[in-house]
Formats: sequence, structure tokens, C-alpha cells
Amino acid sequence: MAPSFVINGGDFAAAIGKTSSGGRASSVYSEVQTSRIDYALPLPSVLTGPFKIVDGPASSAAGNPDGIASLFPNLFGQPSTMLMPTDGEHALDSGRKLKIGVVLSGGQAPGGHNVISGIFDYLQAHAKGSTVYGFRGGPAGIMKCKYVELTPDYIRPYRNQGGFDMICSGRDKIETPEQFKQAEETAVKLDLDGLVVIGGDDSNTNACLLAENFRSKNLKARVIGCPKTIDGDLKCKEVPTSFGFDTACKIYAEMIGNVMIDARSTGKYYHFVRLMGRAASHITLECALQTHPNITIIGEEVQQLIAELNEILAHDVVDEAGLWKKKLAEQSLQLFEFLPQAIQEQLMLERDPHGNVQVAKIETEKMLIQMVETELEKRKLEGSYKGQFKGQSHFFGYEGRCGLPTNFDSMYCYALGYAAAVLLHSGKTGLISSVGNLGAPVSEWTVGGTALTSLMDVERRHGKNKPVIKKAMVELEGAPFKKFASMREEWALKNRYISPGPIQFMGPGSDDVNHTLLLELGLVAA
Amino acid sequence: MAPSFVINGGDFAAAIGKTSSGGRASSVYSEVQTSRIDYALPLPSVLTGPFKIVDGPASSAAGNPDGIASLFPNLFGQPSTMLMPTDGEHALDSGRKLKIGVVLSGGQAPGGHNVISGIFDYLQAHAKGSTVYGFRGGPAGIMKCKYVELTPDYIRPYRNQGGFDMICSGRDKIETPEQFKQAEETAVKLDLDGLVVIGGDDSNTNACLLAENFRSKNLKARVIGCPKTIDGDLKCKEVPTSFGFDTACKIYAEMIGNVMIDARSTGKYYHFVRLMGRAASHITLECALQTHPNITIIGEEVQQLIAELNEILAHDVVDEAGLWKKKLAEQSLQLFEFLPQAIQEQLMLERDPHGNVQVAKIETEKMLIQMVETELEKRKLEGSYKGQFKGQSHFFGYEGRCGLPTNFDSMYCYALGYAAAVLLHSGKTGLISSVGNLGAPVSEWTVGGTALTSLMDVERRHGKNKPVIKKAMVELEGAPFKKFASMREEWALKNRYISPGPIQFMGPGSDDVNHTLLLELGLVAA
Repeated sequence: MAPSFVINGGDFAAAIGKTSSGGRASSVYSEVQTSRIDYALPLPSVLTGPFKIVDGPASSAAGNPDGIASLFPNLFGQPSTMLMPTDGEHALDSGRKLKIGVVLSGGQAPGGHNVISGIFDYLQAHAKGSTVYGFRGGPAGIMKCKYVELTPDYIRPYRNQGGFDMICSGRDKIETPEQFKQAEETAVKLDLDGLVVIGGDDSNTNACLLAENFRSKNLKARVIGCPKTIDGDLKCKEVPTSFGFDTACKIYAEMIGNVMIDARSTGKYYHFVRLMGRAASHITLECALQTHPNITIIGEEVQQLIAELNEILAHDVVDEAGLWKKKLAEQSLQLFEFLPQAIQEQLMLERDPHGNVQVAKIETEKMLIQMVETELEKRKLEGSYKGQFKGQSHFFGYEGRCGLPTNFDSMYCYALGYAAAVLLHSGKTGLISSVGNLGAPVSEWTVGGTALTSLMDVERRHGKNKPVIKKAMVELEGAPFKKFASMREEWALKNRYISPGPIQFMGPGSDDVNHTLLLELGLVAA
Repeated sequence: MAPSFVINGGDFAAAIGKTSSGGRASSVYSEVQTSRIDYALPLPSVLTGPFKIVDGPASSAAGNPDGIASLFPNLFGQPSTMLMPTDGEHALDSGRKLKIGVVLSGGQAPGGHNVISGIFDYLQAHAKGSTVYGFRGGPAGIMKCKYVELTPDYIRPYRNQGGFDMICSGRDKIETPEQFKQAEETAVKLDLDGLVVIGGDDSNTNACLLAENFRSKNLKARVIGCPKTIDGDLKCKEVPTSFGFDTACKIYAEMIGNVMIDARSTGKYYHFVRLMGRAASHITLECALQTHPNITIIGEEVQQLIAELNEILAHDVVDEAGLWKKKLAEQSLQLFEFLPQAIQEQLMLERDPHGNVQVAKIETEKMLIQMVETELEKRKLEGSYKGQFKGQSHFFGYEGRCGLPTNFDSMYCYALGYAAAVLLHSGKTGLISSVGNLGAPVSEWTVGGTALTSLMDVERRHGKNKPVIKKAMVELEGAPFKKFASMREEWALKNRYISPGPIQFMGPGSDDVNHTLLLELGLVAA
């Protein structure tokens, strides 16, 4: 019998009628975990001396400003803000004690615990006697007023550790009038001065709605968001990356690099790898830049090709000589020529009743193996292929969401948490914690808050106007994609594999920042 | 479309009719890979000063000595040997130039490149002007005389790197008279003084047959084996572990630890993990000791339980009250009670025509999920279960075979290679390179060679007597299993998860040795 494990966090014991002890106080730690607890986290220098808070100009919205203004009458137009070092007095009253809640929303991303310890440490240092409530199990914890009061001892074992288990996460949203009412009741009951919502695009939209709601009810509680998601699709000029992306990509890239060396050693298998992620392909693009696979499929590019094909098929004649291909943009043509013939044919022929290509959420890696098998079988019969093809599929997903955060994610999250506490301390609301200049040494990182309404657009959903922070997709004109596109032809045939190796916490490679961020910041040549 | 990669080492380019450049000279390296090239490898102190070679007493065989004696008339009974430091002259003539071949046999294991660099560096240091031939693609490279002459520049990019791609591996065996003839021709053509076979149990048996054959034909070529396999099933008193096991287990344990933290953060999924490996469960046991999962299935224990059940079912009445269970050994009873009822029933009821339990090589992790689903569905109907069960399956395999070797595997392999070259230099043949005292600092490691015939038994295969080195299975009375058995009840309900984190090459945890080895050496309490 092949060896196996069963693992479940919370309710394995509960499921069989026993209670689990829970929490990390009862945990045994590995040597690496233990060493990470005491890893000294540097702060941006603006956070270590006296600073003033400088508001920018009035803000607008990413799209449909009138719509956003009507959805956020109290918050729309408020300025984003920056912390600036000053020679004078510290801007904030260190005598004031705050009561702050914090909640983790949605899927895990490495570094979440550090955001919380950043909030906690700021308040310990600058608003002594403050209280931090950790809402348990995501936004449901706010609605049900389920929380734990955080203490230095409670937080300590989670410092620089992966996972969200300090207070756990959940996927509930605060949406209905009843749910907003429950959140208000919790804010009043705990006498909250503020709430930090750590989450992705939807959760930060929700945070802003909560800020608007609290403000409209004249509650004193303010709300600040923090950008979290391994997918890397919550970013903009002021928020250069979401936390967790760096660690997750490095874990996947380690595994991909290992499989590449395996492939190089025997040539027996063709490895097909799928990675976790929804619509955006930032993870795949980053892992490709780290490892140089033979072929990489970037969903956004496929979408672009499909859009162009739809146009051509609707209006032009597809001639056998292939002259129609000249109507494709250069990048789309490059991709089309790259694809196996079977996929090319599927893109040209198989349409839904509306004439659109049918793209389902399927196990791409297994589909591709099958398509290649079919194609090679055909070529064998034709006598044009004599080789042996063995496909091996891989899916790397859950193992990347909860790894020990890299040095970068550890420091970035700590600064994000520190900044969120500063923003609450200064009475700000409806902002997302913003740490920038990330290609520079930590001491030079910038710190501020960005008006969440300025990131929003309006979408019509179920007959209602809904505010949304638009997901940042891979830009085909962006530096990371262009870098990839300029190299992939060489990678395809010349096996330029790179094996990044395991994430290091000390020594060479330990302070490296991911390619996507460096390219987007213009810090490496595209 | 979900993002995907395609990766293939050698023949992706060839398959589409282009040639690949191949070799690592054309590779780009990650920062961690580069830093590993110059990692300074310490040697056991006996290898750094003058030593003498001390033979032990005449050896016998692990079983059926008469059978082994008749299969190895020239080698049977030869002593194992140890290197001992001496104040006098160095034992070996440094003026003598050697021509040595080396071959990688079977599946990849991290550290193989270091065995080769160990052989090379010894000869550079102590037999200047020697030549090392790397046979390409495994034993087939010997038979076809396909080789590359190794140089410092050729070897350099592979130092402390994973994979077998320096000369690649293969699974062919030298078995038929014609094949032995081909190997002889290569040995004569290249004027070989010796050959190092890096492989598992079968490959080392093959190495010994080759040594016997060369000796019987009065060829000067000697043959030395090296213990390789991530499965960890090639070991004995003199060879405490096979290389690659340490690295592979640490890579799998990193992933398992991450999944555990994920489980702890939401409790949404029950994770079922299967690991690479054949019959022996050393990898699973080691990973369990590193990570503490709720349930671990050790194949050897299941085999023991099945053997006992077979006896009971054949001779006793299985009463409903369960009195029959008293006939089970304590450990087997403990396991039986641990298993879900559905598996218990399958073990009791589903038998093949000979009355034996049917154990197939199946995707255990998916089977278990299905069985649990079925059982919980039943309980839901009965009203005894109200929860939600979501199983998530994982298979960790290929990503462990070619990782960057740990510091331990890097040093161990280098010493194994160095030792193999010493043994050839001193004219030994039919030995397996043996480095011991591995719990001590490297300087105190012992170095020698063990007579391969002393590890052998005879098996009847296809009507013929075949020599075999018996696979070392997990011993249910051994220290690693006993340690596990003493802790698993607590792990089951109390979620004592440990997350080992990524392999570190510097700082805390970087020089740790795996639990299995430390427990077997008696260096930690069982």
C-alpha cells in the first residue's frame, strides 16, 4: 500500500467527537520556525522617527466617479496620504489609547501574521495601553463579535510564520443591512476606534463600504484595508504589490525548478505544471521569469488572441494559405504559431452558440497532455513521429499559500501593519495601507494610505450598481510580460532552465525581490 | 484558461526536429545555485592526512552463503575494509595514474553529482594525471562505450547541484553474456583501472557481478558501488543511509508542513498526501517524524496486520464482540483500531481466491478520500454526523528527486565519492563505499568499503538463482518506528503539526540530519 497522510487543522478532533487543543502555544516548532520568530524586522526609517502626515489632493475614482460618489457620499474624493519625516514634534498623540480590531479575510497568504504584529507593535510603541482585538474566522467574527484580545505572548509564536491561524480567516462578506447592523453593534460594544481589514480586492471594497457605513452612522470606528493575495492581482501605482505573492511564487518556482532538473536528467517525461490562481496569471508569469520553462501559457494573452480570432472569424475569410493570420497582432500571431495544431484547430472551429471560443475552468495540464498524445498518435500513423511521449502532470497550489514568508514578505507585511495602525491613530478611514519604493532598502520605503474609493469603478451586478476594485490582470504591454515575450523563443528550444532552489532566510538570495515587482518598478531592464 | 507550463529536459527540441544545446555550460543559474557551487565541502579527517587501509576478517553473506559463494567464486569471503589514520607514510602510490569510469544508475537522487566530484577531486589530489570517464545515460553508456572525459571545467557547474544531468542516468542492466562482453570491451578499450557504479540495491548487485566478471577474466578493472536511493531502503550497519534520502524527505516535509499550516488556518479541507516510494516506507516515516500528521500509514505495518489477519481468518472465528482481536499483536491492534471502519471491513472481507487481502498499487490518497466520503454519507443518513467533509489530495514525488542537495547530502556524497576513489586506488573491488559515524561532525566520519557479497542473499527468480541485496524495510522494532508509534496517538487528535520550512543552506537548521538516521544511530532518544 502506498504511504499516505491525513491532515486537517481544526476539526479533525471535533469531527470524531473530541476537542482539539488548538493554537500554537501547544505547538512544537522546527528549528527554522523557531529561528524565524526572532528574525529582526527593520522598519522604513519614516516610521522610526518623528513624522507628519501629509494629505494629497482630492481624489477621484478609477472609473465612473459619479457612480462611486453616490455609493460613497461621505468618503468619495478624500485625499490619499503620505508620511513624511519631520524635525519637529511627532504628529500623533502618544497619550491616546486606541481600541483596534483586525480581521483576516479570504484565502491565506504568507505574511498575514506579520501585518497583525505590525499593528500591535506600533500601538505598543506609540499608543501604550491600547487594545487589539483579533476577530476570529474572518468577517463572520465581526458580525458575531467573536474575538480574542491579543497579547505579546499570544502573538509571539506567530511572528514571521506562515498561515492565518492566529485568528483564522473566512470568506463571509458584510453585505446586507442586517450584517452591517451586526458590525455596528460589535464596533459599539467593543468601543472600537478602528478596524483593519486584511484581504483582497473584494475584501478591501467591503472595508470601504464599512468605513462609509460607520462614518454615515457617526460611529467613531475607522476602517483601513491591507492588500493581501498570492494572486498578485490587487495592485496599483500606490500599492505596488499584494503580500504573499512573493513567497507563493518562490515556493512554486522551487518545485518547478526541481522538476526541470529532473527532466534534464532523464528526458523521460514531459512535465506539465498548473499553478494556483484564478483569472490573473501573475503567478505563472513570475514563475516563468524565475525558471524559464519551454512553454508558458499566460491566460491574458490567450484571451487577447481569442478576442482577435472572434473578430476575424466574424468578418473575414479564413483562407488555407493562412493570409488571414496577417490580421492578428504580432504578439497574438506569435502565440498562435506556438500552440499545437490541435489547440489551434479548437480555437478556430469549436464555438459556442454565440460564436465565442469555449474556455472552461478545466485541468489544463491534463488536457494538454491528452491533446499532445492524440496529436503524436496521429503523427505516428503518418510516419512523421517516431519518439516516445510520456506526460507527467503537476498541480502546485496549497503548498504555496502557507509557507514561511520570505524576508521580503515578512518585512513588507510588518510595514503594512505598522502603517495601518498609524493611519488609524491619525483618524484616517477608507484608506488602504500603502508601502512603496519597494526596490530600495527597507529604510527608504515610503509609507502612506491610498483612498480606496480612488481605486474603484462601478459594475452592474444582479441589477444593482456595485463598487469594485478592478483586478489587475497581466498587462501585455507591461514590463514583466514584455521581458518574458522577449525570451520565450530561446527558452522553448534551448532549455534555459533555472532552479531557484528553496527559499533562503540567510545568505545568498535571501533578500531577493520577485522579478515582477522589479520589472514593474523599472529596476531591472525589461 | 488555467496557467500551465511544459517542461522537458533533453528531447523537447529534438522531438520537434531541432537540436538542443544541452549541458549546464549554457545554463543560467539562480543566486542560490551559484552560491552552492562554491560551498566548501569538509572531508572526514582520515581522508585529509596519511592513512592505511585495514582489512577486516573474512566475510560471509546476509543469507545462503553457499549460494552466494557459488555465484561469486572469486569475490565471496573477501574482507570489508577501513581507512585508519597513520603517522607513517601514505598507503597509496601517488605516482600512479588511474583511468576510472563512473556511471549513474536508476532514478535521480540529490547528491549524485557530488559523488562524481569526490572521485575526481581525490584523483586530482592523490593520483595526478588520472582520467575520469563519465558513462552517459546509465549502464547503457558502458555497454555502448558512450562517455565524456571529465575535466575541472566540465564538473564545476554541477558541484552541490541536484539532478543527474552531468552524465545522465538510465535503468538498463548489464545481465546477459553479450552485455557483459560489451562491458569488458569498454573496459579494455578505455584501459580502465576501475569503475564506480552509483545506484540502488539492484545496481550495486550488478556492480558486484561486474566485479566478479572482470576478476574472472583477469581484467585489471575493479568495481566499487555507491549507495544511492531517495527511498532509503539500501542500508545496513556499515552503510547507515543511502544518499538523497535526506534531501528528498526535507523537500516533502516542507510541502507537508505548508499544507498543515494551511489546514490549521481554515479547517476547510482534510488533506491526504501520498509520497513517492515503492515498497519501503522510510520516506513516509521520516516525513511523519518531521511534521506530525494526524494519521500516517506505514506500509510495513499494514503488511504485518494483514499477515496476522490472514492467520486469524484462516483458523479462528471472527466473533461480533471482537474477542478475536485479542489475537492481534499490540501494534497491529492499535493500527486496526485506528483505521476507518470501511477499511477495517475491506481488510476483513475482501479477499482474493487465495484468501489474501488484495493490495494494489493505487492512488491511496484518492481512495482514502472516497472511502471517508462514503462512510460519512452513511453516518449522515443515520444522523450521527452533521459536518462537512472536503478531502484534498496531494502527491509529492518528482519535486523531491532533483532538489539542491542538503548540506548533509552534499558532504556525505562527496565523502562517498572520495572513498570510492581511494578503494579503487588501493586495488579493491566488489566493495560498496561506506562512510559511517554520520551523527558526529564530518571530521570524525569513518571511511571504508564493505564487501558487497556480505550484503547478499539468494532469490529464485524465473527458475534461476539470483543474488540480491535485500531491501531494508521499515523495522517495526526499530527506533524510528517506535518513536513514531509512541507519539502518533497524541498527533492524531492534538494537531501537533511541525512545519520544517524550506531547506536552509546557512544558519539555523542547515546542518540538521534526518530523524531516521539519528534514531537508528541511537543519537536521539527513541
